[in-house]
Order: sequence, then C-alpha cells, then structure tokens
Amino acid sequence: MTTEEYPRAKSLPVRDVGRLLLRCADRPGLVAAISSFLTGAGANIVSLDQHSTEQTGGTFMQRTIFHLPGLTAAREELEREFRERVAEPFEMDFRLTEAAKPKRVALMASREDHCLLDLLWRNRRGELDMSVVMVISNHPDLAEQVRAFGVPYIYVPATRDNRAEAEQRLLDLLRGNVDLVVLARYMQILTPEFLDAIGCPLINIHHSFLPAFIGAAPYRRAKERGVKLVGATAHYVTADLDEGPIIEQDVVRVDHRHAVEDLVRLGSDVERVVLSRAVLWHCEDRVIRFGNQTVVF
Amino acid sequence: MTTEEYPRAKSLPVRDVGRLLLRCADRPGLVAAISSFLTGAGANIVSLDQHSTEQTGGTFMQRTIFHLPGLTAAREELEREFRERVAEPFEMDFRLTEAAKPKRVALMASREDHCLLDLLWRNRRGELDMSVVMVISNHPDLAEQVRAFGVPYIYVPATRDNRAEAEQRLLDLLRGNVDLVVLARYMQILTPEFLDAIGCPLINIHHSFLPAFIGAAPYRRAKERGVKLVGATAHYVTADLDEGPIIEQDVVRVDHRHAVEDLVRLGSDVERVVLSRAVLWHCEDRVIRFGNQTVVF
Amino acid sequence: MTTEEYPRAKSLPVRDVGRLLLRCADRPGLVAAISSFLTGAGANIVSLDQHSTEQTGGTFMQRTIFHLPGLTAAREELEREFRERVAEPFEMDFRLTEAAKPKRVALMASREDHCLLDLLWRNRRGELDMSVVMVISNHPDLAEQVRAFGVPYIYVPATRDNRAEAEQRLLDLLRGNVDLVVLARYMQILTPEFLDAIGCPLINIHHSFLPAFIGAAPYRRAKERGVKLVGATAHYVTADLDEGPIIEQDVVRVDHRHAVEDLVRLGSDVERVVLSRAVLWHCEDRVIRFGNQTVVF
Amino acid sequence: MTTEEYPRAKSLPVRDVGRLLLRCADRPGLVAAISSFLTGAGANIVSLDQHSTEQTGGTFMQRTIFHLPGLTAAREELEREFRERVAEPFEMDFRLTEAAKPKRVALMASREDHCLLDLLWRNRRGELDMSVVMVISNHPDLAEQVRAFGVPYIYVPATRDNRAEAEQRLLDLLRGNVDLVVLARYMQILTPEFLDAIGCPLINIHHSFLPAFIGAAPYRRAKERGVKLVGATAHYVTADLDEGPIIEQDVVRVDHRHAVEDLVRLGSDVERVVLSRAVLWHCEDRVIRFGNQTVVF
Repeated sequence: MTTEEYPRAKSLPVRDVGRLLLRCADRPGLVAAISSFLTGAGANIVSLDQHSTEQTGGTFMQRTIFHLPGLTAAREELEREFRERVAEPFEMDFRLTEAAKPKRVALMASREDHCLLDLLWRNRRGELDMSVVMVISNHPDLAEQVRAFGVPYIYVPATRDNRAEAEQRLLDLLRGNVDLVVLARYMQILTPEFLDAIGCPLINIHHSFLPAFIGAAPYRRAKERGVKLVGATAHYVTADLDEGPIIEQDVVRVDHRHAVEDLVRLGSDVERVVLSRAVLWHCEDRVIRFGNQTVVF
Repeated sequence: MTTEEYPRAKSLPVRDVGRLLLRCADRPGLVAAISSFLTGAGANIVSLDQHSTEQTGGTFMQRTIFHLPGLTAAREELEREFRERVAEPFEMDFRLTEAAKPKRVALMASREDHCLLDLLWRNRRGELDMSVVMVISNHPDLAEQVRAFGVPYIYVPATRDNRAEAEQRLLDLLRGNVDLVVLARYMQILTPEFLDAIGCPLINIHHSFLPAFIGAAPYRRAKERGVKLVGATAHYVTADLDEGPIIEQDVVRVDHRHAVEDLVRLGSDVERVVLSRAVLWHCEDRVIRFGNQTVVF
Repeated sequence: MTTEEYPRAKSLPVRDVGRLLLRCADRPGLVAAISSFLTGAGANIVSLDQHSTEQTGGTFMQRTIFHLPGLTAAREELEREFRERVAEPFEMDFRLTEAAKPKRVALMASREDHCLLDLLWRNRRGELDMSVVMVISNHPDLAEQVRAFGVPYIYVPATRDNRAEAEQRLLDLLRGNVDLVVLARYMQILTPEFLDAIGCPLINIHHSFLPAFIGAAPYRRAKERGVKLVGATAHYVTADLDEGPIIEQDVVRVDHRHAVEDLVRLGSDVERVVLSRAVLWHCEDRVIRFGNQTVVF
Repeated sequence: MTTEEYPRAKSLPVRDVGRLLLRCADRPGLVAAISSFLTGAGANIVSLDQHSTEQTGGTFMQRTIFHLPGLTAAREELEREFRERVAEPFEMDFRLTEAAKPKRVALMASREDHCLLDLLWRNRRGELDMSVVMVISNHPDLAEQVRAFGVPYIYVPATRDNRAEAEQRLLDLLRGNVDLVVLARYMQILTPEFLDAIGCPLINIHHSFLPAFIGAAPYRRAKERGVKLVGATAHYVTADLDEGPIIEQDVVRVDHRHAVEDLVRLGSDVERVVLSRAVLWHCEDRVIRFGNQTVVF
C-alpha cells in the first residue's frame, strides 16, 4: 500500500530515431567506418552494441541506435548511401529501421489462452513495440476475448487433412500484411513450403527447455523423467521442428508434489514471460540471427 | 508447435476432502494423537506436513489433508470432537475447512491492472481455488475489463480527505461477505481501525523486496540505489505499513540499461506472479501465521 | 563490513535422533500406525514428511525424524519390532538410521578439481553430514590438494583398456567400506557389472541440464545449439548412462558473449552447488527413490 | 560420466590488447571520434560497449577493447595523444590499461574462509584476471590454508582499541603495492581516513541483499523478518557503511525449515559467487562508477 503510481510504460521519444543492424566478416576499421558515416550524415549515436564471434577473423555484428532529425524524409537516401559507401565495400548484410514504425504482427494460437492474452494485454499497456493486425486461430474458442482488445479474430480451421488448403488461406491473410508471425501456442505443424512462402520471420514458444523434450507432450515427459526444473523456449521457426535459433529460455523449479497439471500451470507462467521477451526484443530490432544461433543485444 | 494439449488445471477430487491446520506448543505425541483421531473417525490422511520451530520446546504446526466420506454432514460433529479430545487437551489453535468450499474473496485495486487482471484470469482458468465475489476500486478506470470476467466492479472513491467515510462503505460491502481481501495494488492507506473491524485476513502486494524500500516509490528508489535485482513481496496486512508477515517474495535481474519505467515493467511481472502464489497458497490453507512470520506448507 | 560472526554450521544435537524412511502401497491408517508405534516406543516425532503419488491407490512415502533416549542401545530391538508390527503387515520397504552415524563416503574424480575440492571443503566446515574415507582418482594430479584435507588419495589408473582390472581394484577398495560413492567429475565409464557388485548407491554429477545434452561434451554442444541457460544434474547412477533418478538440477544464464570456456567456468559453479546439495540430502536421508524418480523431503 | 575434458579456463590472447574506459557528458560524435582515433593509431576494435544515461544530455560511458601490435611500447604515446586529441576536447575521464598486466590484489579476511578460499582457488584455476600479492587477516586462523596457495599471509591484529595503529600497518603494506583491495568477509570497520589514504579501490562483500539488512547480523535479522530469499551484495567501499556503489547481487530461496545457521550456509554460497563475479569484472575493467551506481559492461 503506497500512495504513488508510475507511468505505465517507457515512452522514449521515437521520432527521428533509427536502428541499424548489420553483420559481416570481421576486419579492422568497421566501427570507425560506420560511426563516421553516421556522424557525417548528421546523426547522433544514441546507443551501440557490437559483438565479434572471434577475437579476429570471425563474424562481426552491430546494432546502432541513432538520432537524425528528419529521418523519415532522409531514410531512402541514407540507406542508399550507406549501401554504397559502407555496406558494399565491407560486404555487409544490413537492415535500417525507424523506431517510430512499429512492426505489424499476426498472432496465431489454438485453444490455450495464456500466451495470446498476455501478448495482447502487454501490447495494450504499451509494453511491446508492435501493432497487432490480426489473431488467427484454428479454433473459434478465444474469439470473444480477443475481440475485446479491438483486434480482428480470424478462424481458419486446420487439421492434418486440410493442411494445404488451410496454409493457402493463411498465406492469403498474412503475406505482405505482416512483418512478424508469433505462434502463441499454435498447435498445428506448418510445412516448409509455407515457411518458404510467408516472407517474414516466425517466432514460436515451445513448452520445454530445448533441446530437452523436443516434440509432443513435454510436461508429461518432464514428469516421467523426474526433472527438478521445467522451462520454455522462444525460437525462430525453421523447417526443423523445435530446432530453430533460440531467442530466450527460462525455467521454474518443480518437485515431487507437482502433478503434470501443476507443471502445465507453472510452465505456463514461464511460457508467457519468455515469449513476451522474445517478441519485445525482435520488435525492438535487438536480435541478429547467426547460423542457428541468435545474438540478443 | 506440437499437436497435443493438456487439461487446463488440476482437477483433484475435492468432495469429502478436509483440511486441518493447527498450532500449539510442541510436546511428544502430537502427530500420533492427531492421526489416531482422524483414523478413528474414519478419515484417510492424504497428506501431512508438519514443522517445529525448535527440536524441542518450540511451536508445533501441522497441516493435514484427509478424505472422509460424508464430510460435509459430519463436519460439525467432527470439529466438536476434535476440540474436546485433541485441541483442548493440547491447547491447540486449529482450523478445519472443506476443500469443496472455496474462499470468498474481494479484490481491491486502484489504477494498475496487472495484478488484478492476472488474478481474475487465473481464476477463470481454474488455477486459483477461490470465488471472487467483488472487485472494489477507488478509481472507475478498470470497470469494463473487470466486468468482462463476470465479476461486480464497485467504485468506492477514497482519498485522504474522505477516509473514514470510505472505509465505512468498504466495511459495509465486505464484512461477513468475504473470507479474504486481496489488495492487488490498492494505493490507499487502510487504518488500524478498519483492519480491526474487517474480520478477515488481507493480503497485500508490495512492489519491492521487503524490507528493502518500504513505503512509497520503491522502483524509483531502487534505481537511485543502483540495485542489480528488483523484487516484490506478498504479505498479510497488519497495522504497520509493509511490516506484516511475508508469504512470498521473488526478484528479477536488472542492469544499468533499465530506466525506472523498465523496472516498473519488469517488476510488474514479478508482482503478479508473487501475489498469485500467495493467494493460491492462502486459499489452499497452506499458510500458518506464526509471530510475524509464516510457514507455507 | 560488520563486526559479528556466526557459528560455521548448524549443530543440531544428533545423539538419540533416528531417521525412519519408508515406502509402500498407499492405504488408510499408515501415518497413524507409524506415529503410534513410535510414540508407544517412547520416541518423540521431531519432524515428519509424507508424500503419496496419487490421492488414493498410489505409492506412499514417509520420512520421520524422531528422538528416543538410548537409541543406539535400543535400535536393533526397535527395528525388529517395527518390522514385525508395522512394516510386514503393511508390506513396507523401510530404512532406520541414526543421525549420529554419518555416512562413510568415497569420492571419485579425474582431473577437474572443482566438485571434489568443494565437497572436501564443505565437509571440513561441517556442512555435510558425512565421513570421507577416501578419494580415488584415475589421475595423480590432485593428490597434494586432497591430502591437505587429511583424506587418503588413492590413484587407480583406469582407461578403456584396463577397465576390468581397474574396476576390480575399485571394488576391493570400496566394497564394505563405504555407504556412498560420489562421482565428482569422474570421467570413466563404470560397467553394469561394477554397479551390481558395489553394494551401495552412487551419485554422479552430469554437466548439463538433463535430459538435454546426454553424453559427451555438453558445454560444447550447448554453445553450438545456442541455448540461453546451461545447467548441471546430480543423479543416482544406473546402468543407463545419464539416465538415473535425478536428485537435483540447476541452471545459470549465459549469452552470446560467452565462449565454450565461459560456459565451462559458469557451469562449474552450478555443478559444485548441485552436487553438494544432492550429497547433503542423501547423507541426511532425505531422498527416496521411486521408479526412475526421486522424492526429496 | 563422460570421457571428455575441457580446457580449464579461457585463454584469450592478451598480448597487445588494450582496454579504454571513459566517461563524459554526452554529445554527438563521441563514438566516431574515439573509434576514428583508435583506427588511425593502427588499432583494431575487438569489442565496444557504450551506455548513455539519457537519450540526450546525460552521461556517456564507453568500454573499448582493441588490439594494437606493439601496445606496450606505444602505450605512453598513445595515452598522451588520446588525452590531447580526444579526452581533453571532450572533457573525458578515461583509463587505458593493458590486458596483459593483471591487477595486483590484496585480499583481507577475518575468520570466515569461504570467500577467501574461493577467490584463491578460482585464481589458481585461471578464472580471475588478477595477481594476489598478499592476504591480510586480523586473525591467524587461516594462515596454513592460504599459504598452500603460495600466497603470503600477513597477520595484522585489529580491534576497536588499536584501530589507528592497525590501519597504519595496513597502509604500509598496501599503499603503492596493490591496485585493488578485496574485503572477503573482513569484519573490522575501516575509517574514512584509511579509505582516503589507501589510493586504490576496495570491494566488499556484504551478506545481505542491500539495502535490506544494512549493518550487523543480517542473517539473524532476515530470519526474524521471515524473508523468503536471502542474498549477498558486492560493492565498492565508501565512507558510508554498506552504502557504496553496488557491483553485483544475488539471492537464494529459503523457507521456514531453515534455521539461522542454514541461512548462513546457503548465503555463503551466494556470497562467494557474487564476490568472485565482482572481482572478475573489476579486474577485466568492466565496471565504471557513476555517482553511487555502477555500469557493468
């Protein structure tokens, strides 16, 4: 009981703030080249994180946040010049985004509500830097709860039998309309063909501490194995089930008194926290993929 | 992405299940006396937890879960006999409850929604063993969200200036109607007179790792002190602000990159988890108060 | 900087303190039968923990600590009577030990010192309730450091090529002389024949969060998989490599900046804490094995 | 039981590796100016961490690791040029160190051995980047254990009554000889005069989660308050007892079954881990003090 309240969420000014993510073979002079370019373009570096996989000769990754008055108008030109003067000479992959333009996100779920509602609720509070453009489910159950957040709920029945047809409907809905798809306990397999066609990254939450308990029924198998912690893993989706680059993981302690149902309940808390962190970090352009790993700045 | 789903919550049979909590001066023969009484009454002990504060000569506390066919009909008689044959000879405080009768609970909040909505959502999932009979707030803001859960929302304006009047209204609403009041970020002081009159326990969530940062603005003070973890504490409310018996605490790691607003956001996750655990444990009759401490079985 | 010091370790009186562990099919009246027997024998129950795997019809396990003046003299008779009057009628497995008689323990290690020295150091402080009768290693490296603790260091070379001979030497040293063998980073396979012949339990520390990264080089594989936490697991040794009942596990957070060597360093801290907890709990008779799981009271 | 072993500690090449730490008022062009200077001097930036306390107008801090062939010979000149061309124009505080020159460290302790031995043991494994030049204690108890590590043990009796004299002896031993003093459970007050005179930073481990339980007997007070977690805090020593800038903190869960002695035992594990992290980070020049806070890169 205290008498003071806080602002609900961080409201950093985002106007004129750009984010530059890049990855290339490491070599001398990279930081200087990038920061000189930005300074020369009139930008002020607000924050810079950098990582090299080896002391010399590895892969170099960097995330730079900068402030540049008039960024939106100047962006196309800035991107072109950066490509010509820095990215191409150093053979960099890079991505330039504006903090003021939140990612357009689709959430997909089946019947479990905890991850889905948690993401919607956090976004309503302003905790997540995203715009949820639709929720898609292969069940009608959660329609009312989702629509209370002012978000469209689209029911796309999907079973083993209608997979091709269902995936085509998903592609029609998603392609070009979203920058990210979040599988918030969506319990249908997505085919490699779908993943190839979708054209944006997908983040999935798996309800175990990967690589333990890959596949179905992880909590039941955790109980049978008698583990003392259960966990959850948020990862980018690749064609290999539960094998994509891990973004975040966490665990919670359990003991012999906990039945499988308790593991489900305790694990749900970990799932929603882990997934929300992964989504936040992705939307803030903090994650760089590197082989089957991630760097989270 | 796996294809299996779990039951949402543990559905232990609760019919005919009783819970016996007791506390007394430690002496030989207590466990035998209690378990013989229950066995003699036809009950089967399902689970038994016991704690003595000293190896000899301390305080003895025990929680026993038992199964007794026809418990509801037999309960009054069972309670009377236990009092005469065990509790009085051993000078015990005891409490006998039925698992099939969930606690009647009032939730009180101000403007912050995270603890309040989390309790309502967990209860809807069947995770918490309680019946929420009303939500009371000194602000009208959260009415719509609360009522979507099918729970009455009662707006009782409360400020420093109308405290006596407001507390009288609260007493009129609560007294006799609830077994527990949960202060889910209710930001008004409650007077000792109110606490005396209410006639049931209150649980509060404080947004710091007590006894650090007692009082107002704990996240701001945590930032100023430069701590590396922030936390939350659920405790029973007593006349001394933030000094009541602690039921549960937890923490989350922070660093120099986190502004006060980030501490608020990260701490909110800890607050809602800590409060929900404390409420669950209280509603399952797992908590025994002992001086200014608690035993959580 | 404070001016006060504490006693180094808990010095509960252990004279006349007995520990009774038991396991049987669950049925009504078990707790009453056991506690009545103990009370009737003049014992005072100091602490009692009990667990049933199901609400009805499962397996019942109980750990009871009791105080009985003259326990050492009375123990044989007490054990016989308990067997006849309680254990046999209820078809119980049970074990009766005296707190005053610490377990005789052999520690086995290869070249890594962190788990071995930590156990020796904790035992010197009085934290672990055991008597270390010997250290056995397949390398001579750690002899001097071990002997500084006043413990014999026995070098038994063991490779793939001399396995049968080496295991015979180990059996000659261990059989009948120890109540527990702790594999504190002992890096040689032990055969099922050895495990059958040894006649006492073995506890191993595996340097991963099992069942993730069973087998060799877990830290390297953890780095390659890009996990965000690494862990350690203490378990009883069975014929199946890294598949025995888990006693304790824990994890530590890592990130992209950590090389494999950092995972090794950070994981070492987890290994020694996890192993020391498992050894302490075993030596205090807190662990009951149950199928391939453990109950830790 | 696996058959593979790892290198004991990370052996990054340190020859020709420099570390540049700096702090100044934030303004545009800082990162570019620093990285251009280093690139121009022939250095390759290996790693760069940067933090600004505000988006604009705050304090800017940066840690840069660079590789420069012939660093040792060039260092004086490099430092002079950096001062003239960068540090003075931007009004920076800065520090330039060589990774190949480990800090000279004195450890001070009283009777508790856990923090002291843990630091010595980690350093022997090569985990800490320091050279322990002496151990000073106000008790003779730990002499033999310390000397087994090949480190001088100097007994300087210190009580309330001989404080001035004892501190003079300490100054004679320490001043000019060490770059860091670590109070590894040294239980005597050090005066502000001593702290002024010593000429190097001191790190202390306090056995509570500060600011909870400042001062004496924190574990006893934690037990009395009934907290559910106990912790430890490593901080730089200032004239205000237990009020200096916090470098690292951590906690461990406890419950009603734990006596004060158990809190001491469990807390000791946290103390030694927290202190070793703080010492490692300081020795790797990862810590920048900023007001009463720290930034740990």
